[in-house]
Amino acid sequence: MPLLDSLFRSKEIDELFSDTACLQGMLDFEAALARAEARTGVIPLSAPPAIAAKCQAELFDKEALKSAAALSGNLAIPLVKRLTTLVAKDDKDAARYVHWGATSQDAIDTGRILQLRQALEIITADLDRVTDATAQLTEKHRATLIAGRTWMQQGLPTTFGVKLAGWLDTLDRHRTRLRETQQRCLVLQFGGAVGTLASLHTKGLDVARALAEDLRLRVPDLPWHAHRDRPAEIATTVGLLAGTLGKIGCDISLLSQTEVAEVAEPSGEGRGGSSTMPHKRNPVTSAILLSAAMRVPSLVSTMLSGMVQQHERGLGGWHAEWETLPEIVQLTGGALHHLSEMLPNLKIDTQKMRDNLDLTRGLLSAEAIAMTLGGEIGRLAAHQLVEAASHCAVAEGKHLREILSENPEVTHRLDAGKMDDLFDAAKYLGVADDLIKRVLAAHRAPDNKRAKESE
Amino acid sequence: MPLLDSLFRSKEIDELFSDTACLQGMLDFEAALARAEARTGVIPLSAPPAIAAKCQAELFDKEALKSAAALSGNLAIPLVKRLTTLVAKDDKDAARYVHWGATSQDAIDTGRILQLRQALEIITADLDRVTDATAQLTEKHRATLIAGRTWMQQGLPTTFGVKLAGWLDTLDRHRTRLRETQQRCLVLQFGGAVGTLASLHTKGLDVARALAEDLRLRVPDLPWHAHRDRPAEIATTVGLLAGTLGKIGCDISLLSQTEVAEVAEPSGEGRGGSSTMPHKRNPVTSAILLSAAMRVPSLVSTMLSGMVQQHERGLGGWHAEWETLPEIVQLTGGALHHLSEMLPNLKIDTQKMRDNLDLTRGLLSAEAIAMTLGGEIGRLAAHQLVEAASHCAVAEGKHLREILSENPEVTHRLDAGKMDDLFDAAKYLGVADDLIKRVLAAHRAPDNKRAKESE
Amino acid sequence: MPLLDSLFRSKEIDELFSDTACLQGMLDFEAALARAEARTGVIPLSAPPAIAAKCQAELFDKEALKSAAALSGNLAIPLVKRLTTLVAKDDKDAARYVHWGATSQDAIDTGRILQLRQALEIITADLDRVTDATAQLTEKHRATLIAGRTWMQQGLPTTFGVKLAGWLDTLDRHRTRLRETQQRCLVLQFGGAVGTLASLHTKGLDVARALAEDLRLRVPDLPWHAHRDRPAEIATTVGLLAGTLGKIGCDISLLSQTEVAEVAEPSGEGRGGSSTMPHKRNPVTSAILLSAAMRVPSLVSTMLSGMVQQHERGLGGWHAEWETLPEIVQLTGGALHHLSEMLPNLKIDTQKMRDNLDLTRGLLSAEAIAMTLGGEIGRLAAHQLVEAASHCAVAEGKHLREILSENPEVTHRLDAGKMDDLFDAAKYLGVADDLIKRVLAAHRAPDNKRAKESE
Amino acid sequence: MPLLDSLFRSKEIDELFSDTACLQGMLDFEAALARAEARTGVIPLSAPPAIAAKCQAELFDKEALKSAAALSGNLAIPLVKRLTTLVAKDDKDAARYVHWGATSQDAIDTGRILQLRQALEIITADLDRVTDATAQLTEKHRATLIAGRTWMQQGLPTTFGVKLAGWLDTLDRHRTRLRETQQRCLVLQFGGAVGTLASLHTKGLDVARALAEDLRLRVPDLPWHAHRDRPAEIATTVGLLAGTLGKIGCDISLLSQTEVAEVAEPSGEGRGGSSTMPHKRNPVTSAILLSAAMRVPSLVSTMLSGMVQQHERGLGGWHAEWETLPEIVQLTGGALHHLSEMLPNLKIDTQKMRDNLDLTRGLLSAEAIAMTLGGEIGRLAAHQLVEAASHCAVAEGKHLREILSENPEVTHRLDAGKMDDLFDAAKYLGVADDLIKRVLAAHRAPDNKRAKESE
Repeated sequence: MPLLDSLFRSKEIDELFSDTACLQGMLDFEAALARAEARTGVIPLSAPPAIAAKCQAELFDKEALKSAAALSGNLAIPLVKRLTTLVAKDDKDAARYVHWGATSQDAIDTGRILQLRQALEIITADLDRVTDATAQLTEKHRATLIAGRTWMQQGLPTTFGVKLAGWLDTLDRHRTRLRETQQRCLVLQFGGAVGTLASLHTKGLDVARALAEDLRLRVPDLPWHAHRDRPAEIATTVGLLAGTLGKIGCDISLLSQTEVAEVAEPSGEGRGGSSTMPHKRNPVTSAILLSAAMRVPSLVSTMLSGMVQQHERGLGGWHAEWETLPEIVQLTGGALHHLSEMLPNLKIDTQKMRDNLDLTRGLLSAEAIAMTLGGEIGRLAAHQLVEAASHCAVAEGKHLREILSENPEVTHRLDAGKMDDLFDAAKYLGVADDLIKRVLAAHRAPDNKRAKESE
Repeated sequence: MPLLDSLFRSKEIDELFSDTACLQGMLDFEAALARAEARTGVIPLSAPPAIAAKCQAELFDKEALKSAAALSGNLAIPLVKRLTTLVAKDDKDAARYVHWGATSQDAIDTGRILQLRQALEIITADLDRVTDATAQLTEKHRATLIAGRTWMQQGLPTTFGVKLAGWLDTLDRHRTRLRETQQRCLVLQFGGAVGTLASLHTKGLDVARALAEDLRLRVPDLPWHAHRDRPAEIATTVGLLAGTLGKIGCDISLLSQTEVAEVAEPSGEGRGGSSTMPHKRNPVTSAILLSAAMRVPSLVSTMLSGMVQQHERGLGGWHAEWETLPEIVQLTGGALHHLSEMLPNLKIDTQKMRDNLDLTRGLLSAEAIAMTLGGEIGRLAAHQLVEAASHCAVAEGKHLREILSENPEVTHRLDAGKMDDLFDAAKYLGVADDLIKRVLAAHRAPDNKRAKESE
Repeated sequence: MPLLDSLFRSKEIDELFSDTACLQGMLDFEAALARAEARTGVIPLSAPPAIAAKCQAELFDKEALKSAAALSGNLAIPLVKRLTTLVAKDDKDAARYVHWGATSQDAIDTGRILQLRQALEIITADLDRVTDATAQLTEKHRATLIAGRTWMQQGLPTTFGVKLAGWLDTLDRHRTRLRETQQRCLVLQFGGAVGTLASLHTKGLDVARALAEDLRLRVPDLPWHAHRDRPAEIATTVGLLAGTLGKIGCDISLLSQTEVAEVAEPSGEGRGGSSTMPHKRNPVTSAILLSAAMRVPSLVSTMLSGMVQQHERGLGGWHAEWETLPEIVQLTGGALHHLSEMLPNLKIDTQKMRDNLDLTRGLLSAEAIAMTLGGEIGRLAAHQLVEAASHCAVAEGKHLREILSENPEVTHRLDAGKMDDLFDAAKYLGVADDLIKRVLAAHRAPDNKRAKESE
Repeated sequence: MPLLDSLFRSKEIDELFSDTACLQGMLDFEAALARAEARTGVIPLSAPPAIAAKCQAELFDKEALKSAAALSGNLAIPLVKRLTTLVAKDDKDAARYVHWGATSQDAIDTGRILQLRQALEIITADLDRVTDATAQLTEKHRATLIAGRTWMQQGLPTTFGVKLAGWLDTLDRHRTRLRETQQRCLVLQFGGAVGTLASLHTKGLDVARALAEDLRLRVPDLPWHAHRDRPAEIATTVGLLAGTLGKIGCDISLLSQTEVAEVAEPSGEGRGGSSTMPHKRNPVTSAILLSAAMRVPSLVSTMLSGMVQQHERGLGGWHAEWETLPEIVQLTGGALHHLSEMLPNLKIDTQKMRDNLDLTRGLLSAEAIAMTLGGEIGRLAAHQLVEAASHCAVAEGKHLREILSENPEVTHRLDAGKMDDLFDAAKYLGVADDLIKRVLAAHRAPDNKRAKESE
């Protein structure tokens, strides 16, 4: 977690990808491998305990491993060498069976899968926290009027509830994607040098099954040393989530602008202040969300490019994944975590939302009027009439109603009561409330819940 | 389909994204909208036929639409204007109801979804052709020996069948991903100006349901104008496939090298020749596969970045999708199509595969020997002994067996018969054949089939 | 220029990359090659006119070329075949010398360089139009007060002139970069099959020089078939410009928001209207600028990835460039062109800028007060005092001056006159005007001019 | 430097971007700022020594800073707070003037520029080492025959010297680009809160000049808080270099393949071994070069996307740069460094290069023969004749010469002596040697040298 960048991260996830955790993932593989091979009669039953006793990250000198890795081309080679030496000190016999039948990539990939499994569980939990908070806000702001904005211009009224339901609906789809990806992609890597487990002769699959069971992973139909759609899918699934987090950060930052001021990130001791401008409240969480959404897509692109790997085990493409996938998970997980902390405390100014609706002096009712008139004089003619009136209102600084009231084409079709209705934002919300209901119902559906629980 | 680039494309898919097809997609939306609104009592029953009669792409002047779009900011605005004019010529009354209650983005997004639906069906069919051809080759080359190569160096023997099974296994996963994405993402877009369908008052959802039924699409819980995880997921799912196509192209191009010569793309009149070197047979399909795998990841990155869209409908991000998503689908679909045509005709030289195994004079048996010795003298000691012998063999230009035969540590443990076995590549394939069986069984499983049929 | 996407393009640049222009570029190479080879005595003097007579794009059937290219792997092969046939009809002898000594890539790359040369000239001219317009606006709005905004929050006052000078300063740097790139990268490609010009024996460099002179290009020290830093640099230089255009589009779109309303893109018949909301004025040019800035970075990434080309001429990487580089140039050039048309007509509401400065009731003067107090009570103490007062002002809905006036720590240090000054935005602009002067002087410097003229 | 990834890095460059170095960069800014402000009479002369005494990274608790940064939104805010506290302990008065008139971004950006300056110097030095080694190898292998390969197929003979000269020519251009970028982009950042240096009143530019002089940086015409073309240009310039490094790595890895075996990365204790296959020599440096060339382009894309920053100081885009730019520099610098260490020790097997030329039994001479015949029977007819003969040779497993000798069309035009010449690769090298001379001359030109020295 580099210093300048630390603010984007979640401590919990970053620790999962620390140097120690990385080593431990590989060592967990080695210990489990020994147990699996003993259970399947490949190595003596006496070896696993002696090996497992040394499979502890803190027994290894990281700096020495780094130097050796730079020569050998990957970390597993010096790690296995060192582990063998450590085991041999206590049990020469057991040392013979360290890493038996496996290849470096088996240890590195499976170790990484173990780390990713934990990280995706944390992300899933944080996502649940965010969706539950969003669902509560959606319910609460079901009827809160706000300007709907398109192309960064006010368009028509909508409700803050619909806005939030849009976030929720999308986030719930990411929940499903994460589940599919966890099931498809978190599998054992175990193939030996070229994927045939040749050195285990006929026992390769028995060992694979025992090893997978030990690590609580599925056995894939085939080793996937040079077939990287699984890690790449983890990248795209998490990357899609980052995009949605960016959308949410974008909305919050736009709503927080001094001139809009409809929401504000929570303030507090040391939060979002400026080193020079004492009145500033910087939307720090939005910055984190936006920044993650800028960085992650390119990293996903690397993961996809890196899928082009040669023959049985690739050169360059595999290496390019090593830091890239954890980075994707850390940035997205970090942003999600910050959102989960901030969202329940988001300050919402419903009065300001209401006030901003009136900024354009009736223009947001233009469509309502055009549609109503359209039923009588045709959509296009009505559109043009109201467009002209809108221009006139803007040019003369008048309320749209005032301009329309001077037009007999309008007045002989719409009386004052009808006009009242048409200029009442709360009466021009279409199916806003139905949409909210649909999204909340889907969020709360037993299916959604069961899916969560059955993971 | 730009001239220089045309060789990467599939004609069938490219036509789906032609200007005419693009217009027709939007016009299909408009015709269906009119029918749906008539069925739900929103507009007169007489309007739909008059509107539908003009919803034909060839009635529109594309150049005029282009010029108008540049001013209005999107194509739907001038298209709807022009459609209204056309309808009005025959039926003034019906013209009033063109595009009733919809927004530009409803037409553009739904039109695009209709195009994408067809494209994904073609991709699925081509993918089936490729996997079936791969399955046949896998079966055929189950026992064909080939050098397994890691880090671009020969490592151990494997079979060409396992290599192909690796492709097949991955491609079958893409098949599943495509299905999930088709089900989740090919849904109706219909929300009106800010997503509330306000101008249809309480009838918005009824119209949406009727419209979706007409177009054979699902109704989403909420309009997704500014929530772009669905188009972005189409991009990632197709993008993942592009990565695997690149891996296959990479393998073929490496195996086709003059010095390796184990496979060759089919030759033929005008195929792969060089303008200057008459003997050349360029691997054209590999170039297409590799090129797609280089271009698509970045385009996926654009789709993910573009998810950061403002408020109810975005500025810039939505526009960035317009050409990007079709490009991803066209490049990947084109590459897949070329592979489907080439693969059944790939020339495979099994003798050359066998010959190349012997290039290193026994070195590929090094691991077998090390493992066998390892059982007696320990993995590490055996590794070091064989490593030294391998160096020696290379340095002296001798066969590894010759070197080892001079070492009593080896000879008193391994007799000539054992040595024969250890230097027989066919006897050091581990579970290669089991892996092939697993992959073929999964490919042929009723589940896989049913999944295909039920789409 | 795909239909949906047409609004992002400049007609002039897009025509440079049309199918016809692409063919013509390659044919210009072939005609010039014949002339150069005749001049250097490689081929008969009678050949060039016969060859040149057929080097006209309209003589070729594009659809037939496309089909043939898909088999041969690139367009040059069937083009040269067809050209040879055409020449042979009139002059069998001359036909022997078509494409003499060249390779496909020589024609394709040099043809592309000729297209790019024209495109970069157009971009340079549009950039000059934009910088000149920006310089005029900068001069005009030198003293126009506007809120300086950081982290999307109002911070301190600045001038609209400084804001514009920031755009100008950056754009002028892009001008310099374009010049450097044009000089370094627009060079001849001519190397024959593997870059040695072997088939021209000792005359290769003489032909190269004559050919380059004919096409007004520089001769590089070495053919660059597989060394793609030059096209990649064109991509990065143009890509950097796209980033700045996005920044400008971002600023305009933010300033155009309904709630800010300090600038507006020009309206007019058909411009920026909404299909449903008659009052809308969508910032169409901003959408174009933002969209280009989202798409171009990924395309640049493809160009950089594509640099990894094998041996003497690459497989896949070269192909990946074909459509990507023109796309970068077209998107950026299109956006720049739209900006050049829009900028002189941008509507600027200086009163609204002034009004928005007062929205926060004195908070923008917080830093001025903190700094002044800081001189007496220390920066940190002053910062904390003013921060607390700012919070108080916000909480109580009061003007900051009112809050501060109640604090003796302030009042005994700052009298009313001093307070007047501190709350006068025009008196807290630091060196704003000096900065503007520096930027305008640099823009108008003879060096900058001469650089322009000497190209 | 994460553990798994450490092998890609250069220790020297990575230390430049360590947490300590990052802090020290910002503290160097703060110390220099105090000195500059004292020199220009803005703050008392007594303050700078007291401030500078505490501007030492080791005085700060990094973990505490990280936690505080996560709340405040950037590291500078808590750093300045802590620095002020430290200074105040010894000198309350001086503490008032810490960070006077600056904004967080001034410290962060300038600190980063100071780090980048050092990193680019190291990269330049390593680049010099690589180009000098390449120049020596080019000279040495001027006449070493090797197969020229296009589309991954052998094409014509060339020399290893030309291949190397291609690398050298490109690398020298990167040298020039680096120089231009260093001059244009390594400038001071100093603008205060919104870029006007308001709190320094009229003295802003005087302080800027003194500060820049102290730090040996240029003063830009304008602060560039939200105008990021400079950091983005650093990214593209370094990114272009990464692409060329990938090309070199690609060439080396292809030439190192077991079946090609023309070069080999140096072996040695622990270098490139496999954990399972004792005979393996993995091309570790190639993996590093290829991996960097896969990762850097996407990171460059992030830098370009991140240029879209809002108003006076951006939200998200600036943050996205923090870790991305150092990563680009570290990955590229690391790869370059590894190349500089490996290249002088690359094992080159010139005999194998010669042998591989004969693999195709005369086919590499096909063009020579076609061109010679072409002079008599026309380019196209000759091409077809030789193409047919080549096919025949391949089909029958014969030498091309044998096939051609049976064809009277050939034999009555080319006698045995002529045939000897045509099948002699050393006589079909065109201007290979001239090209080498040109590149070496340019590399050694005083201009190139002076340019280096004058930096």
